[in-house]
Amino acid sequence: MVNEELTTKLKEVATLIRYYILIMTTEAGSGHPTSSLSATELMACLLFGGIFRFDVDNPKFPNNDRLIFSKGHASPLLYALWAAAGKLREKDLMTYRKFGSPLEGHPSIVFPYVEAATGSLGQGLSIGVGMALNAKYLDKLPYRTYILLGDSEMAEGSQWESMQLAAHYKLNNLVGILDVNRLGQRGETMYGWDLDTYQRKISSFGWKTILLDGHSISEVLPAYEEALHANDRPVMLIGKTIKGKGISFVENKNGWHGKTLNKEECDRALKELGEINKSVRGEISLPEDMKPKEQLSKTLLKSVDYPADKPVATRKAYGNALVRIYPQFPDMVSLDGEVSNSTYAEIFKEAYPERFFEMYIAEQNMVGAALGLSCRGKVPFVSTFAAFFSRAFDQIRMSQYSDPNIKFVGSHAGVSIGEDGPSQMGLEDIAMFRTISNSVVFYPSDAVSTERLVEEAAKHYGLVYIRTTRKETSILYNQAEKFTIGGSKVLRKSKKDIATVIAAGITLHEALEAYEALKNEGVFIRVIDLYSIKPIDEATLLDAASSTKSIITVEDHYAEGGIGEAVNSALATYPVPVHSLSVKRKPKSGKPQELLDYEEISRTAIIKKVKELI
Amino acid sequence: MVNEELTTKLKEVATLIRYYILIMTTEAGSGHPTSSLSATELMACLLFGGIFRFDVDNPKFPNNDRLIFSKGHASPLLYALWAAAGKLREKDLMTYRKFGSPLEGHPSIVFPYVEAATGSLGQGLSIGVGMALNAKYLDKLPYRTYILLGDSEMAEGSQWESMQLAAHYKLNNLVGILDVNRLGQRGETMYGWDLDTYQRKISSFGWKTILLDGHSISEVLPAYEEALHANDRPVMLIGKTIKGKGISFVENKNGWHGKTLNKEECDRALKELGEINKSVRGEISLPEDMKPKEQLSKTLLKSVDYPADKPVATRKAYGNALVRIYPQFPDMVSLDGEVSNSTYAEIFKEAYPERFFEMYIAEQNMVGAALGLSCRGKVPFVSTFAAFFSRAFDQIRMSQYSDPNIKFVGSHAGVSIGEDGPSQMGLEDIAMFRTISNSVVFYPSDAVSTERLVEEAAKHYGLVYIRTTRKETSILYNQAEKFTIGGSKVLRKSKKDIATVIAAGITLHEALEAYEALKNEGVFIRVIDLYSIKPIDEATLLDAASSTKSIITVEDHYAEGGIGEAVNSALATYPVPVHSLSVKRKPKSGKPQELLDYEEISRTAIIKKVKELI
Repeated sequence: MVNEELTTKLKEVATLIRYYILIMTTEAGSGHPTSSLSATELMACLLFGGIFRFDVDNPKFPNNDRLIFSKGHASPLLYALWAAAGKLREKDLMTYRKFGSPLEGHPSIVFPYVEAATGSLGQGLSIGVGMALNAKYLDKLPYRTYILLGDSEMAEGSQWESMQLAAHYKLNNLVGILDVNRLGQRGETMYGWDLDTYQRKISSFGWKTILLDGHSISEVLPAYEEALHANDRPVMLIGKTIKGKGISFVENKNGWHGKTLNKEECDRALKELGEINKSVRGEISLPEDMKPKEQLSKTLLKSVDYPADKPVATRKAYGNALVRIYPQFPDMVSLDGEVSNSTYAEIFKEAYPERFFEMYIAEQNMVGAALGLSCRGKVPFVSTFAAFFSRAFDQIRMSQYSDPNIKFVGSHAGVSIGEDGPSQMGLEDIAMFRTISNSVVFYPSDAVSTERLVEEAAKHYGLVYIRTTRKETSILYNQAEKFTIGGSKVLRKSKKDIATVIAAGITLHEALEAYEALKNEGVFIRVIDLYSIKPIDEATLLDAASSTKSIITVEDHYAEGGIGEAVNSALATYPVPVHSLSVKRKPKSGKPQELLDYEEISRTAIIKKVKELI
Repeated sequence: MVNEELTTKLKEVATLIRYYILIMTTEAGSGHPTSSLSATELMACLLFGGIFRFDVDNPKFPNNDRLIFSKGHASPLLYALWAAAGKLREKDLMTYRKFGSPLEGHPSIVFPYVEAATGSLGQGLSIGVGMALNAKYLDKLPYRTYILLGDSEMAEGSQWESMQLAAHYKLNNLVGILDVNRLGQRGETMYGWDLDTYQRKISSFGWKTILLDGHSISEVLPAYEEALHANDRPVMLIGKTIKGKGISFVENKNGWHGKTLNKEECDRALKELGEINKSVRGEISLPEDMKPKEQLSKTLLKSVDYPADKPVATRKAYGNALVRIYPQFPDMVSLDGEVSNSTYAEIFKEAYPERFFEMYIAEQNMVGAALGLSCRGKVPFVSTFAAFFSRAFDQIRMSQYSDPNIKFVGSHAGVSIGEDGPSQMGLEDIAMFRTISNSVVFYPSDAVSTERLVEEAAKHYGLVYIRTTRKETSILYNQAEKFTIGGSKVLRKSKKDIATVIAAGITLHEALEAYEALKNEGVFIRVIDLYSIKPIDEATLLDAASSTKSIITVEDHYAEGGIGEAVNSALATYPVPVHSLSVKRKPKSGKPQELLDYEEISRTAIIKKVKELI
């Protein structure tokens, strides 16, 4: 039986929340009041019904329960909840959506009670999967992760990726709250109020499901209680709700998505709410005072030795590096999309199986979960083929708004993968990762620099992309060589240089071959290893530009957004011609060297271009 | 009862197919023989068991059944099937994966029996959805679309997007064939041989399911027969199969994914196959001689008039344009991701509901389905928020390898959307679409140019991206103005220009304001509307570079891969400084003008930059 006193109080709190939702959105003149009103009881009961455990004065406390609004447009509800909890004043709410306010249109981490930025639908559940994996398998903490989901966003495939993985890992600490208010942005959702279909689909993915009336406190509270006792699987509360609930003239009406009430309508709505007790405050239970499980200190491993005469694929050096550096970075975890024997994440998996998560072929959820792990202080290294990160571009894009500390590692870059053909070739990955604010983009050319750059990536708090190569490549550096974020290496240099060839990865080896051939003809070029594509070593590029007549960039990537454009941008105000050699013809199957020649990014093309400049 | 003679023949054909698979992969030295062997009976029965209807001499015939290998790595099986059908010789197979061969590592449209390029997993079903939508709702043809699916790829969320949409549109002409061989690339899949779980999941998504032994001809043939008679829903055959079936020493063994037999192993394997009848040929039934339903000719609509003094959002002009041009382009269809009242695809939907498909919030499937429609001769206009196309980057990337004729239209570009905040802001869409080979990227600034560019997009066979703006913008052009792919407009020009400001979309209006302010101070700038970002108008840019002292680009987009880099690339070998104004600070909620100012891409920033150059 639900406590009557509590029910009465929750009703009062829900009314106050509705009041806040209405006044803040009407003041803002934009936002989603109706999508907030439908989930009011679902959220009020969670936070203030004794379920949620959270130290409101310490939002970063490791054992706090986590709450993510996957339906980020219900942000008015989120802010109203924290106002009802006493952490925001009514006048704070009136800054909603205004320039400089932490109360942004969609949840932003500027507001301290937001775990991760949302607003692109279908991402909250995957972030929650990362947080729940952390609680169950890494930090070994009893906190729970709650995700408020919209019914429209259940159409996103990413949701089902998250659901299958959550069930696979038996995340009984993960609770979804599905707010089935029937109406999407432009009309009814695919299933309307057909809760049985949701239940059938979700339970077929291995979740426990609980159907309920999402506005009935006496149904919502026991549902959460039941969710607390799931022992082998995640739980989804599937609540039938009414969009605009509480305001008769918007309830369950199409045309009210993302629309606010004007002043008169708002006044009318407030009258319908009846008496508002502005002094009532929702109380949130404190969590247990528990800290993450201590990581055992591990013995530092010696570096793998890379004999100068034995080519090694950089993807393999990546796997070696992970194992080597883990003792220094005990928060590291490795996630891989069912290709760990290609990316060589498997080397780490074999050494530290408890720090490795098989994420299967579901890149969107993999990236979302990595963000969730990052939010909980872990350092995820996320690997798949470079090409397949394009599958998760929206998740990568969104992660930048949540202060991520994620390392993406894409193998099988470029046409040099050979016979598998264009579907497997990463040819736009540099462009994609360069667009992310403050990202670091590394492209090592040999095993030694890979080892060093993986280490630099781990040291750096932020989003890093490392591009590795399928083919074995010669060792260029000795173990003592230093590599830094924003650095480069001038590998060949003389006073007679007539051009600078800038390359990285596979094409650097082509550039070095071209250098030798040209030298034999008495032609000298400077050769730069641009291992840090972003940030870029402007000083070295400017020096090369001023001392050689021209710049040639060579990359196993499409021209747009790649090394050529990065170099061009760095030299945009310096008058030097930049010639870009890049993948320009439709790639196909073939031997790596055939394809490098075909695309005119091999030694032959470099030599030809240099000679044109003489 | 299954015909005994047919069964005997199919067994012979299956053996021949296995022979082909083995010899071609061993010769190539790479490829996926075991993933091909598991689906041999499933495919042999489909093609040669009287089910599949296809004019083998006319692969483009509109009423052919369609077959897509979503598990594209099983390409050896695909080529072996067509060899068994007599359309490839054994010596053709020996070119598999070699440079210049149409038999690429993953299916490529260079091979005429490939409907669409595959190889990035989890995409075939969505392409099939497009083809099936076309058959049922547009061409009104009885052809069926068959998709061979791998079990590993069922982890991709895109599969479930396709499944839900196929059920929603009651695509009883779509048949999936799920090859449950238990083993993925690096070990067992999430569900192994748990066929019941697959059945539960798939049927919960509204599909008819048929479980079967995928190697038993007497089970496979009746299953296809049953699939022919589905009347209200798509059908999934869920076949239990054995990876490497037929070759004892690789059957059901881990470590044999993507691995070929060496010469000795191949000889051993061929012995196990027993007698091979190289003269047996699989026969494929002919389709009915039916043509697509004729499109009724429609009355040409008069252009919408845009009074010079009344601002209109380009997204709205997009909707108007679709309606206006449809009679000229009767193959057009419109697809939208549940935001048609924001992208204004709804204007078209209201005029031509039968040519509009609601694709719900599932962008990956939307793009895949668009490719399927394009493959069947339609001209899909696909709309959502610019930001959310990042959700489907892999599908967009893959589509370029299938000769696509797709128009993508992204609304709500840039920080100028205002209060909704960064999750809804397209800030990397130009970069993304520029990476696609031969893509066209348009960015209109007013309603008139939008109308013209939508028309240019429809006329052009290829992949086009059009970026529209949320905010209303002033009318700049009169109706007679011409716009072309690769063109630009010099809007302000004098002999005294000290710099050229290049902009498009919202920032063009800022540039024009800056022009006026500077003119009042006696400072003159050239202003160019770069409405075609790709291809780019090099001649006009070079002329501007040579006649003004410097170039300033201004864009409501991140710097990387955007207008600045496009212009820089076009001028890479011309010595002119290019200054890029772009979104560089973390975006937030606020009024459009506040955000343009904050990011220093407004008139103020332009004026400041011009003055720095004096």
